[in-house]
Amino acid sequence: MSTKPTQTKAWKSLESLSYEDINLNLLFDQNPKRFDEFSFETNGLFIDFSKQKITSEIKDTLCQLAKEMNVAEKRDAMFAGEKINHTEGRAVLHTALRRPQDEKVIIDGHNVILDIHNTLGQMKKLADKVRGGDYKGFTDKAITDVVSIGIGGSDLGPRLVYDTLKSDQESINLHFVANIDGDDLQAALNQCHPETTLFIVISKSFGTQETLTNALSARQWMRNHFGDDKDISDHFIAVSANVDKALAFGIKEENIYPMWDWVNGRFSLWSAVGLSFALGLGFDKFHDLLSGAHQMDKHFSETPLDQNIPVLMALVGIWNTNFGNSDVLAVLPYAEKLKLLPAYLQQLEMESNGKRVDNEGALIKDYDTCPTLFGEAGTKGQHSFYQLLHQGTADIPCDFIGVINPDTKYKNHHESLIAHMLAQGQAMMQGKLSPDNLAKDFVGNKPSTTILLDKLDAYHLGMLIALYEHKTAVQGFIWNVNSFDQFGVELGKEMARNIEENGMSNTDPSTSRLYSRIHKGKK
Amino acid sequence: MSTKPTQTKAWKSLESLSYEDINLNLLFDQNPKRFDEFSFETNGLFIDFSKQKITSEIKDTLCQLAKEMNVAEKRDAMFAGEKINHTEGRAVLHTALRRPQDEKVIIDGHNVILDIHNTLGQMKKLADKVRGGDYKGFTDKAITDVVSIGIGGSDLGPRLVYDTLKSDQESINLHFVANIDGDDLQAALNQCHPETTLFIVISKSFGTQETLTNALSARQWMRNHFGDDKDISDHFIAVSANVDKALAFGIKEENIYPMWDWVNGRFSLWSAVGLSFALGLGFDKFHDLLSGAHQMDKHFSETPLDQNIPVLMALVGIWNTNFGNSDVLAVLPYAEKLKLLPAYLQQLEMESNGKRVDNEGALIKDYDTCPTLFGEAGTKGQHSFYQLLHQGTADIPCDFIGVINPDTKYKNHHESLIAHMLAQGQAMMQGKLSPDNLAKDFVGNKPSTTILLDKLDAYHLGMLIALYEHKTAVQGFIWNVNSFDQFGVELGKEMARNIEENGMSNTDPSTSRLYSRIHKGKK
Repeated sequence: MSTKPTQTKAWKSLESLSYEDINLNLLFDQNPKRFDEFSFETNGLFIDFSKQKITSEIKDTLCQLAKEMNVAEKRDAMFAGEKINHTEGRAVLHTALRRPQDEKVIIDGHNVILDIHNTLGQMKKLADKVRGGDYKGFTDKAITDVVSIGIGGSDLGPRLVYDTLKSDQESINLHFVANIDGDDLQAALNQCHPETTLFIVISKSFGTQETLTNALSARQWMRNHFGDDKDISDHFIAVSANVDKALAFGIKEENIYPMWDWVNGRFSLWSAVGLSFALGLGFDKFHDLLSGAHQMDKHFSETPLDQNIPVLMALVGIWNTNFGNSDVLAVLPYAEKLKLLPAYLQQLEMESNGKRVDNEGALIKDYDTCPTLFGEAGTKGQHSFYQLLHQGTADIPCDFIGVINPDTKYKNHHESLIAHMLAQGQAMMQGKLSPDNLAKDFVGNKPSTTILLDKLDAYHLGMLIALYEHKTAVQGFIWNVNSFDQFGVELGKEMARNIEENGMSNTDPSTSRLYSRIHKGKK
Repeated sequence: MSTKPTQTKAWKSLESLSYEDINLNLLFDQNPKRFDEFSFETNGLFIDFSKQKITSEIKDTLCQLAKEMNVAEKRDAMFAGEKINHTEGRAVLHTALRRPQDEKVIIDGHNVILDIHNTLGQMKKLADKVRGGDYKGFTDKAITDVVSIGIGGSDLGPRLVYDTLKSDQESINLHFVANIDGDDLQAALNQCHPETTLFIVISKSFGTQETLTNALSARQWMRNHFGDDKDISDHFIAVSANVDKALAFGIKEENIYPMWDWVNGRFSLWSAVGLSFALGLGFDKFHDLLSGAHQMDKHFSETPLDQNIPVLMALVGIWNTNFGNSDVLAVLPYAEKLKLLPAYLQQLEMESNGKRVDNEGALIKDYDTCPTLFGEAGTKGQHSFYQLLHQGTADIPCDFIGVINPDTKYKNHHESLIAHMLAQGQAMMQGKLSPDNLAKDFVGNKPSTTILLDKLDAYHLGMLIALYEHKTAVQGFIWNVNSFDQFGVELGKEMARNIEENGMSNTDPSTSRLYSRIHKGKK
């Protein structure tokens, strides 16, 4: 069976289906059941693809593409713990992190569900203790502030979850530090006191430069307060696979939580990487988040492809990218609390599928892979870049995300918010011609997907994040790339090390001269 | 003279210069003076275009394009107050806001510099009074918190300036509320007390739905505390052109600051729209910001096109967009304090030039206008989407921005930060071939611009923002669009009003069914 998507029968059929000739408004005229045909729902997550440029025939052909690319088999291999991250020889088991205690996932002869629930138990214990005021610092005071130090996958997911779910009055203040720029750490430390602060240092290798640099400066901040010779180890927790390095840093063994090589960083918020928000929000919310994600896992693994929400979402994206030539996707949550979702999805999708080498190690020359994702919470984006979405020369598909039952006392604000979300999808599709003044002309026919969440609680947030995870995996399956490695981040790191260690040598003339200009300009 | 860029001689010449055949590494081999030839500096702002795919010939031809498109004449018309926003019959005079008191800019027979400096004087007086504790609330207490309520141009610029320049200990806490989602207002109010809070309501019409809705809820929050019948007018300031509506809201005439129709929202942070950060940072910083921007205005208006930094930046962008087919631009500030710059630039560039109708009212069919902008502060982006920048199928030009002399005690963090910035530009250009394992192959030859600021103070921030403003204007001049209107935002607003007032009537079948689904799901 063919492994290159462009060599499938379905791909050739899709090319003949003339994306550019499709008129969305006409499709609704032709098919009064269009909304019912292209809308799906599972456990409080509703999704409408009817404003996408698909027909029954296109949808069937896209599903045929998924079949020819063995999406179901690849999905099942992922769930079963096969080493589908073949370039690194690793299983891909973020879904195992969401499974109930009585299930089994065997890797190399070992049931990892036991490890997972063992860690969950430890996390719950720590969260209860810290939140209950029973975990004490060096001067026997309870913890008031937790500072999570991590970057990329050790930052964006936990940050999104906390920002979305935190209530007005949490008992613990949670801070996130990611950037190696000292201003990021400083901003967090300004709000903390050494006696009541707990740091969580998250790095699989315990050697990520940004994270280690921030952790060392945080430890120095503690030592400046307590004195260099005091045992401040109770103020530090590690989430790492490198126990030796964490111990050497001065973290107690009981305070080292595991990271597993079968969980990729950008899919890791469900593991001990999420310890920060378990402490910040309470373990019940962590549990609900896992439940929601597990619910989406079940939907993804059990539902036929043609009704499978993440599969359809992936296929619609492929239709827009590869046949409609859209290389940008706008993610537009109509919920201020989801304002970090676009940044989270940038890593999830662009790091997973921003690839140009396929699973056979060949250069991809005849199709595009991941588009650029960007977005902003509505209605803020409307007053920013929506001008381009409506009247620019590019066609940018949009994902709208709304919440039906928000936890707000400002009901009238929410009524308006939702009206705006619906109106934007309508405006993009319907357009409005203004033949006398083309500057006011809206061509319309711009595709969008609308997702409705019953509530914005931990359960539905878990479903939403897992939905995008699976969409990402399916697109990788079809584009025939390994979504679970990230060799593209290595060269920059290597060159940065060289610049730090050797100054301007071994760089190109522009970089070396920039280096000189910076050092000349230092005061 | 031709007004369509594609009909110029230069455009045809540029098409023949084969963007896709250019090899950056080869260009450096061929020209040892390349860095000197393509780097420019003015007053503490240094910019290096040598990693862009330009040669002397291409640069000359791009400058020829600027000449054929009358860029210098259009620029001079803008500075002189001609009504270059022709669709709305307005002058475009954000540059006048930065001019010294003794200059003159006459509109309709009136010297607006007088109005500007009169307002600046009032702003300084208020800022000094509030910051000095002499401005009192209803219960005679000094103000501790200022809440800026505005959206789009009344939000993004002031928010960027405050976030960039605030120090660890400001005497006034400044909050920004933009989204109509009540969670945005709630998050600000949670940190404030009614007796010590001052609201600034910013809306040209005083009728922007988001802003008015938030202002009404803020007023109600005050009334809930003080009682409905109390005169709480001292807690509200308006920045608006609609004095009557601001008065009717209950704001004293002396507390209403002007907005002028010759300043477009996304270019307005230099006006009374910036009152929030004048209060939050002190008027001296506001003044320095204006000085820096004015310095860039002088550079832009006085420097020959072929050495004119904003003009060259605009031309390089056009070369990448229109001849290199890049429809995305990544903005990557290596300074955590500039983390909001990408969001600010999304509005500035995408709302200004996200247009497909030219100045003659004709549909643009044969060239692209504004690309999508996105970005993240380095090094955070490196652990997110840079995988795609290095190894994706798309070519995305990057703007790197670094600071030579940061105000930080974490010097070692900054050394690493700058090494990473330089390394990324180097890696994107040089690449690194890995013939035995293409998954580790970096093709390189990816263009970038590097900007260095001497310091990240108000003066250099003013220069940087004005640089991007002028870049945006020049691109609009060349693409032959009106960068100063935004009709594309109207249709969505109109349809939202219809949905709010009439429910699901007059919508398409998808939107009406989504509306029903939402109302059916409400608990």
